[in-house]
Amino acid sequence: MKRIESVQNQKVKQWRKLHTKKERETTNTFLIEGLHLVEEALKDKSVIKELIISEETSIPAHWNVDDLSITYVTNEIMKAISETESHQGAAAVCAQSEQQEIVSWKKAVLIDAIQDPGNLGTIIRTADAAGIDGIILGDGTVDPYNSKVIRSSQGSIFHIPIIKRKLDQAISELKDQDVAIYGTSLQNGVDYRKAEIKESFALLIGNEGSGVNENWLKLTNQNLYIPIYGKAESLNAGIAAGILLYHCLGNK
Amino acid sequence: MKRIESVQNQKVKQWRKLHTKKERETTNTFLIEGLHLVEEALKDKSVIKELIISEETSIPAHWNVDDLSITYVTNEIMKAISETESHQGAAAVCAQSEQQEIVSWKKAVLIDAIQDPGNLGTIIRTADAAGIDGIILGDGTVDPYNSKVIRSSQGSIFHIPIIKRKLDQAISELKDQDVAIYGTSLQNGVDYRKAEIKESFALLIGNEGSGVNENWLKLTNQNLYIPIYGKAESLNAGIAAGILLYHCLGNK
Repeated sequence: MKRIESVQNQKVKQWRKLHTKKERETTNTFLIEGLHLVEEALKDKSVIKELIISEETSIPAHWNVDDLSITYVTNEIMKAISETESHQGAAAVCAQSEQQEIVSWKKAVLIDAIQDPGNLGTIIRTADAAGIDGIILGDGTVDPYNSKVIRSSQGSIFHIPIIKRKLDQAISELKDQDVAIYGTSLQNGVDYRKAEIKESFALLIGNEGSGVNENWLKLTNQNLYIPIYGKAESLNAGIAAGILLYHCLGNK
Repeated sequence: MKRIESVQNQKVKQWRKLHTKKERETTNTFLIEGLHLVEEALKDKSVIKELIISEETSIPAHWNVDDLSITYVTNEIMKAISETESHQGAAAVCAQSEQQEIVSWKKAVLIDAIQDPGNLGTIIRTADAAGIDGIILGDGTVDPYNSKVIRSSQGSIFHIPIIKRKLDQAISELKDQDVAIYGTSLQNGVDYRKAEIKESFALLIGNEGSGVNENWLKLTNQNLYIPIYGKAESLNAGIAAGILLYHCLGNK
């Protein structure tokens, strides 16, 4: 059992650095906080490199923390490493996923430059719920290990493979595996309810403001749009992804 | 043309008070900020009681601001009344909607205690996009004139009637008008894709954590659920609303 009492401790400084993308990429790790997220991570303990528990917190009885490295810290240290206003006394350093291959995916989501962490996290959660096999992040997409993404994903970041790839390359790989690619577009394409969706599909979701890059829309099998009946100019990117993903599942 | 230079001015204090729900309810007004929201409000100028422009900002040429009360303020005042980090130089005091009647609505959304402002705003935006006639907020729902709700609604707050009502009363009124009520439930009910949706419908969306109150679920025509195929425990409330709303529209 380790115990740290000083905010000046090197480990504490190291944990705090994980709030930056640079440090996360250098170390291939990320920091999660809160009881729910730690509990989700515990479902596959191999992702947890270190559990951090505040001295005022009891580890819930149903958590299996055998073999895990646990460090106990003061309330002050937990506050210092937490990004939320009221921490829940539990945090963990986790390993980023090593999987970077598209392996026999029948259903996928491709992300083109989603910027808002809440949107990306919600899309990851929705894709998980929909039973999608994996998510591919193209250039310009917010870091999936950003704490806001992780929070909005509600732990789904641990349930579904997330890989980074140039989107033209990802589209080509998926097509080689007989996956039909459906782009999403505000102006062009067909009403999503009139398209014939293949059982094996990948949905390509675009940036909040500018949508999917025109270059990628040219590579798809078909581009879909969601009709707008009222005075709203568009749908939120996460909402559009949810409507289309569940529609593409069909009535299975 | 009015001009205010001191942050201590009574009007500035009044505007800042509109960040509280109490003051908004007392005055039946609310404050919006940002070019996009003010532009949306300008589409029906009767809602704008006062336009506030910072001295460094030019009113866009395509804005029709004739007959509007305009107050010019210093950059410092605009910063003081703004809740965002970088204000855009334009704000407005708007009148809350006076409509409190359900009049010949064919399609409605009922909200039971949605707490997160971002979720409520997104649901308002989605309902607007889907061409819904009106939204009814039950007890325990976040104030729709909260600035975060307005921002996530992307201006849809100005496009669709939003009224407050006890949900049992609203359900009864809608049923009297031959509107079928569909509840949403995590556990019970039918797979939404297998339900027969009437052309005139109201969708009842529940609280992020606890869902729709059991008492209201008993009053519906049918309760729907969205199947979860992966390891996520649930869908985000806004996403669930989006999937169901667009599904209920059918292929019109």
